[in-house]
Amino acid sequence: MKKIELNENERIDDLQIKGYRIIQNPKAFCFGMDAVLLSYFAKIKKNSRVMDLCSGNGVIPLLLDAKYPVSYIEGLEYQEESVQMAVRSVQMNEREEKIVIRQGDVKEVKTICPREGFDYVTCNPPYMVGEHGLKNPDEKKAIARHEIKCTLNDVIEASAWLLKQYGHLVMVHRPFRLAEIIYCLKEHKLEPKRMRLVYPYIDKEPNMVLIDAIKGAKQRVTVEAPLIIYNKDGSYTEEISRLYEQDC
Amino acid sequence: MKKIELNENERIDDLQIKGYRIIQNPKAFCFGMDAVLLSYFAKIKKNSRVMDLCSGNGVIPLLLDAKYPVSYIEGLEYQEESVQMAVRSVQMNEREEKIVIRQGDVKEVKTICPREGFDYVTCNPPYMVGEHGLKNPDEKKAIARHEIKCTLNDVIEASAWLLKQYGHLVMVHRPFRLAEIIYCLKEHKLEPKRMRLVYPYIDKEPNMVLIDAIKGAKQRVTVEAPLIIYNKDGSYTEEISRLYEQDC
Repeated sequence: MKKIELNENERIDDLQIKGYRIIQNPKAFCFGMDAVLLSYFAKIKKNSRVMDLCSGNGVIPLLLDAKYPVSYIEGLEYQEESVQMAVRSVQMNEREEKIVIRQGDVKEVKTICPREGFDYVTCNPPYMVGEHGLKNPDEKKAIARHEIKCTLNDVIEASAWLLKQYGHLVMVHRPFRLAEIIYCLKEHKLEPKRMRLVYPYIDKEPNMVLIDAIKGAKQRVTVEAPLIIYNKDGSYTEEISRLYEQDC
Repeated sequence: MKKIELNENERIDDLQIKGYRIIQNPKAFCFGMDAVLLSYFAKIKKNSRVMDLCSGNGVIPLLLDAKYPVSYIEGLEYQEESVQMAVRSVQMNEREEKIVIRQGDVKEVKTICPREGFDYVTCNPPYMVGEHGLKNPDEKKAIARHEIKCTLNDVIEASAWLLKQYGHLVMVHRPFRLAEIIYCLKEHKLEPKRMRLVYPYIDKEPNMVLIDAIKGAKQRVTVEAPLIIYNKDGSYTEEISRLYEQDC
């Protein structure tokens, strides 16, 4: 583990997998369970080239690198401060050979990235649209959470460009956007093939949806068993406990 | 309850709600839990006009009439034998004032039904497409189960014609068709607003999906809590037990 200088408000957190660590700034944005579940759900095949859009502080590239024998991961992020954090986290973990972080706009992917250069695109995008949820008064958090700089359509259009034929877009999102997501994916010839709903409790509405869409695939989607986070007593379910244990 | 003559292979089953009964022919098709869950999920508002497409032996019109204070229910069915059974079931229950069964083709709805005449369309359509599942060697069962006489698109196109603005299409289907269903609904300006996945067991893939789409509504779908049928020991879950008790 290489020593790295921290800026104001930054801290180093343990990713609880193979000793990987990450720089976070609670004043900007910290990763949550959505990033952990996305990397768990992604099931990246070995030797894949992966692009992570809306990469934030680089948590997804780090988790995927720790979990799967990928050949190369690129993280694209719009906000300069997050890019700098992600770059330092990659250096701290000494993963510069595998992980490259770039500053850039998802809407300009066609001018900055080659076409069909990736086997996977992953994305934990901003979830909220204008009318849903209050905009965060802090602009950095707002950009990470609301579709200010990057819409669902931007992410899907960029993915359709970046992916090879039969490449995968693996995304985590909010269930209330599900119909839009599926429609937009299909409009861009990304066929939803695998989907899993994440329910906090067995008797509650889901608060996340995980989707794996394949470019150019035939129609037919497998909706997987429900992913339930908590038992009635508030403890983690067996699957979530196993996931976190596996990571340690 | 009026006395009705039965044809060969027919029997009378109790619908377990308000004494309603139904004529069924096990050699043709008997209703299953999908019909019961569809009528439970539909939440029809009072004084509504309802059209049930692919109505089979009329189980959905009978269940909806028993459950909700609707003003009128029409059942449209292609197969003459099913139509005759449904008509006799309506007579047997003495519900001719509320329920009308018609023989007709969903593809010809525009020539046989007025435009925008209904508040709700319900449908438990054939689930299977050509390449999925073996075709049933018995033609009558095959027509009820496979998209031979009526495709998903036919049902949705007919619903878009039949429904008033802000009217509901409530459908039960198989989860493997979910992406197609959502895409097709949105193409016809029927916005998925409420969705529920039915899981046989908490740790298994869902085997049914219930969808409520509203004509001309804004985007935003509520995915409801999982509907789980069986406990681990094979007994009905509390919700399913309550549903069947309520019906008695």
